[in-house]
Amino acid sequence: MDPKLIEIIEKELNSKSYPSNPKELYEPIRYILSLGGKRIRPLVCMMAAEMFGLPADSKSVLHLAKGLEIFHNFSLVHDDIMDEAPLRRGKATVHEKWNRDIAILSGDVMLVQAYQELIQSESEDLKSLIDQFNRSAILVCEGQQFDMNFETIEDVSLEEYLNMIQLKTAELLACSLKMGAMLANASETDAEALYRFGINLGLSFQIQDDYLDSFADASKFGKQVGGDILANKKTYLLLKAKENASSEQSERLQAAMKLNGEDKVSAVLDLYRELGVDQDCEKAIDKHYQKALEELEAISVDAQLKAPLKNLAAKVMKRDH
Amino acid sequence: MDPKLIEIIEKELNSKSYPSNPKELYEPIRYILSLGGKRIRPLVCMMAAEMFGLPADSKSVLHLAKGLEIFHNFSLVHDDIMDEAPLRRGKATVHEKWNRDIAILSGDVMLVQAYQELIQSESEDLKSLIDQFNRSAILVCEGQQFDMNFETIEDVSLEEYLNMIQLKTAELLACSLKMGAMLANASETDAEALYRFGINLGLSFQIQDDYLDSFADASKFGKQVGGDILANKKTYLLLKAKENASSEQSERLQAAMKLNGEDKVSAVLDLYRELGVDQDCEKAIDKHYQKALEELEAISVDAQLKAPLKNLAAKVMKRDH
Repeated sequence: MDPKLIEIIEKELNSKSYPSNPKELYEPIRYILSLGGKRIRPLVCMMAAEMFGLPADSKSVLHLAKGLEIFHNFSLVHDDIMDEAPLRRGKATVHEKWNRDIAILSGDVMLVQAYQELIQSESEDLKSLIDQFNRSAILVCEGQQFDMNFETIEDVSLEEYLNMIQLKTAELLACSLKMGAMLANASETDAEALYRFGINLGLSFQIQDDYLDSFADASKFGKQVGGDILANKKTYLLLKAKENASSEQSERLQAAMKLNGEDKVSAVLDLYRELGVDQDCEKAIDKHYQKALEELEAISVDAQLKAPLKNLAAKVMKRDH
Repeated sequence: MDPKLIEIIEKELNSKSYPSNPKELYEPIRYILSLGGKRIRPLVCMMAAEMFGLPADSKSVLHLAKGLEIFHNFSLVHDDIMDEAPLRRGKATVHEKWNRDIAILSGDVMLVQAYQELIQSESEDLKSLIDQFNRSAILVCEGQQFDMNFETIEDVSLEEYLNMIQLKTAELLACSLKMGAMLANASETDAEALYRFGINLGLSFQIQDDYLDSFADASKFGKQVGGDILANKKTYLLLKAKENASSEQSERLQAAMKLNGEDKVSAVLDLYRELGVDQDCEKAIDKHYQKALEELEAISVDAQLKAPLKNLAAKVMKRDH
């Protein structure tokens, strides 16, 4: 990540001013925006704009970047209510710290504030810019709905799962890149290529997230390896395993998933390996990563202007060490 | 109301097409928009545009009108969750018919859809149009927060109450009028006058709503007279009564409010009359109504072009019979 750009975003987000009343509405907004995070969406938006000649720290770009981060945080506040999550970035979620109603309403205000930032971006084609934002915003909501549906549906296909993570995670990343490019008057072809770069990078990242939860080096992984298995979470690995399994293997997988604790994790992992799911997953991660790089490659600017986003992709995917 | 214009709005809202999936997200939107209602916000938006020469049924105006009605319905869906309301227009609310999470998320989608309509309005100054919408949207949310706060605060002043109803009800009416005028390229002076017409009409209407709940002719009033008194609702009448009361009268008011049923209603009504609150309320209704008409009067178009909005105001306030 570029620490200088992230510092600029943080400063922008933390210096936002709010009415003092009703404080129940504005304190949660200040709170959630101060909790940090990778700020990856505003970051790639700024980098995309810079790639096409608009300085990353120009006012216009910063408004757009802020709008995207505020939208992302709006979606976190509302998703956390739905998921009944107690913690976000190690701190109490808004509905826990205040209450459900305040989380709904301050989230609503944030969604409007995102548009307040967008319209200040001095775009030459504000309509197209907001149109792109609207479409992506709705897709993100669709992703959340599919994710909730999948919790109670037994038969989720791998294809449906990939569609869900694309909507829920990759879409806003791709949108951020594309909007940065659009603001800098990139050609539609280039803006679309950057969008697909974002979709593929987002997919690669999310599939890797699933992979690491099961196959990470426990000494380097930040959380418990096997958490998804213990929670019966529908992941790329589990859905691919179901796809690959013979009926006999499928029965063994079901039996393994009825075990508890370490026994469950190791039995399921053994089956994942037997079914070649670890390798399938690695291939999928690599396929989307390479596809992302190809999309970046095809963009009609000098290679050196693409280097920052290429490096960012490598860092996000931990391919740099 | 103009039945022809309302028919056009209904047709527009009901012919909106939605993705088929995820149906949990789109069925509630279709449902809430089909429940009818007075459609007063899109109606005044169309009338305001027409007043400045843009046909009420032109595509551009219809998109704006739809956006305002969709926003209004978004706010109803989310408010109903917060108020735990089981019914809306005599039918199950979205969170009752589906569930809380679906009501949150489909509401979020509606808020984005409102912007999707707005940007299709072919405004010559889209930025200013959306800027006005954003400001009003946030004020509406503030109004809902104040309304929720007032439920648990003992000492609400009449001024705070008036501010709350202005935000929660009058603001979006005023915004709809102003945006219609803006789209039709009215001067800022005229657009602002129309905005104040809306604020005052909205206030007059809301105060009359409070008045009728206590002093309506029971044979003509659609619901139980005295409902607000029974529910200890903080209304214009109650807050004005507290303001007018001597300490002795204040004690009697408190005692009356501890009674039940018909006894409570008649005791409180007697005190309201003793304190002259009924007349104060009538004066306030009339003051804002007259102010609204003055604002309309001041607008720089022919009187005959103002007649539809003047007639609408009279109808809304039931001053026409």
